[in-house]
Amino acid sequence: MPTTTLAPIDAATFKALFRHYPNGVAIITAAGAAGPVGFTATSVASVSADPAVLAFSVTHQASAWPTLREAEAVAIHFLDAEHLDLGRTFAARGIDRFDGARWRPLPGGAPRLLDVPTWTHARVLERVEAGGSTVLLAQPIAAEVGTDRTPLVYHDRTFHQLGEGSTLRSA
Amino acid sequence: MPTTTLAPIDAATFKALFRHYPNGVAIITAAGAAGPVGFTATSVASVSADPAVLAFSVTHQASAWPTLREAEAVAIHFLDAEHLDLGRTFAARGIDRFDGARWRPLPGGAPRLLDVPTWTHARVLERVEAGGSTVLLAQPIAAEVGTDRTPLVYHDRTFHQLGEGSTLRSA
Repeated sequence: MPTTTLAPIDAATFKALFRHYPNGVAIITAAGAAGPVGFTATSVASVSADPAVLAFSVTHQASAWPTLREAEAVAIHFLDAEHLDLGRTFAARGIDRFDGARWRPLPGGAPRLLDVPTWTHARVLERVEAGGSTVLLAQPIAAEVGTDRTPLVYHDRTFHQLGEGSTLRSA
Repeated sequence: MPTTTLAPIDAATFKALFRHYPNGVAIITAAGAAGPVGFTATSVASVSADPAVLAFSVTHQASAWPTLREAEAVAIHFLDAEHLDLGRTFAARGIDRFDGARWRPLPGGAPRLLDVPTWTHARVLERVEAGGSTVLLAQPIAAEVGTDRTPLVYHDRTFHQLGEGSTLRSA
């Protein structure tokens, strides 16, 4: 049954709207006062190619939020299907997400995860509070783009990959 | 070969970063002074579930931008694979995108496309200019969620769907 509401929609309806809306998966990291922080995000979006600007959001409940509130720069790693376990690790609670991760600090300290070949180092331009989250706009200042990418897709609360024969053509 | 740049990255590198980053596909519509406007977007992102807030961006080159700059509300339609042709129509230039589309105005006039079962009517909260685009934050105030959704995915400049067996499990 479709759900219709007329007031500002409730959290359950909002989540239902986005449950079947697929997204790429990224790990966003930053240099925190007590060491590197990072989280798996499905909200990264391209905003402008020239000049380059991207956006992502972070909930104020996230363990990385106190760092993201202040960070001057972030590293954004675009995950392929082979990075599934890394994506799960950076979404898990109550663990040291960097334990076992191979990383190196970028200038300014944001940790670059060495196992993800496609990444960008981005300077935070602006923070816009919205609901219980903040949208960050950031300007990529360095990037590496890997080859042979088979991206990870988050959809219906699980991770997927685009398989062979997934391309659609008009009837 | 990976591409590395140290200055603000150029448009080609930025596009390469996002080329293999998959996104859901939506059609965003609004009531224009000269009739309904709409465009196919791959930038819709969930920001906050409670209170409900979503974000999307629109380039200032878009034919819909003069309307989106002023609009108080928009309708956002989340496309399934079966809506491929509609998605292509609302990305095409130099045509009347609403020619042949079945739609009805929501309160305030934003056109709801009747062939897309999953949609939300959202009030624009804020506009943030970034590069040659504007990020809009919007609060859903009504929604319908369809069933049996097989979402459309935009990736590598073509439309895809998540096929059978696309689900990944950890090794």
